[in-house]
Amino acid sequence: MDYSRYIASIPDYPKKGIIFRDITPLLKNGEAFKNSIDELAEFALSVGAEVIVGSESRGFIFGAAVAYKLGIGFVPARKPGKLPRETIEAEYTLEYGTNKLCMHKDAIKPGEKVLILDDLLATGGTTNAAIELINQLGGVVVGCGFVVELVDLKGRDNIIDVPVKNLIEFEGE
Amino acid sequence: MDYSRYIASIPDYPKKGIIFRDITPLLKNGEAFKNSIDELAEFALSVGAEVIVGSESRGFIFGAAVAYKLGIGFVPARKPGKLPRETIEAEYTLEYGTNKLCMHKDAIKPGEKVLILDDLLATGGTTNAAIELINQLGGVVVGCGFVVELVDLKGRDNIIDVPVKNLIEFEGE
Repeated sequence: MDYSRYIASIPDYPKKGIIFRDITPLLKNGEAFKNSIDELAEFALSVGAEVIVGSESRGFIFGAAVAYKLGIGFVPARKPGKLPRETIEAEYTLEYGTNKLCMHKDAIKPGEKVLILDDLLATGGTTNAAIELINQLGGVVVGCGFVVELVDLKGRDNIIDVPVKNLIEFEGE
Repeated sequence: MDYSRYIASIPDYPKKGIIFRDITPLLKNGEAFKNSIDELAEFALSVGAEVIVGSESRGFIFGAAVAYKLGIGFVPARKPGKLPRETIEAEYTLEYGTNKLCMHKDAIKPGEKVLILDDLLATGGTTNAAIELINQLGGVVVGCGFVVELVDLKGRDNIIDVPVKNLIEFEGE
């Protein structure tokens, strides 16, 4: 499916020079959204995923729907202060400063095969933080799937030894 | 299905006297998560939902999976500064101060039948903000579904003229 007509491109958002790729038109179209989940679920099956991890917050949308489709579990990777039980954390770099991603300490069992899903692959910072969390818990990251990949940012090169899948690519930032 | 064994109860979180109802064990269990989505989807069908609205961020998890299951669209209601196109907003009251929920101006078409889904019904503040947004856009709220309802907080009484469904109830805050 050609998803390009369901992605809105917003120039100069959130700041000048950045083109924001907005997936809300895709979500609103039942057929396009269903197709995107089915494609990501096919990828999940092909890499043998036993559990899906999605990052706060747009990763929840795609991760939860794929987990539902496959009848497997979903683990949210969250910002600090959101998970009530004992957590582990991983830091990642933003343009200015750093941020943290957290996961419950019992979220992943040792040896579990984990697929990470998110809406967008840019530099790969959030994804690498999620990989670090899963590794800390002894899980095995079997793949990363994204709706949109911003290929010029070369995030894929930062995700070492893990199969990466996208549904649509854009050039430029 | 009895979901109680999949909800962790954390005393004194986020502060003393509050029991936090944690749905992450339910998400992690593929069968329990699938059941919860199937039950909410059945409710969605019974009220004739044409689109699902979920609030940032746990509402994304249940809302997106139900939309996928039914092959209909999903609309995220988000915190300020997250949606790149023209938005409308609604304010709601927290224990201290207020917060805002936003939606793209073209998110809902006039007359569209909308089901709101979220993980938890407490006082109903977020849900009423979502209802206000949908009404502003001319949509028709046909129901609200929650995994957990904290019945003592009487949120249901604040949601006027809309069918409310939960999967499990708890007493106390």
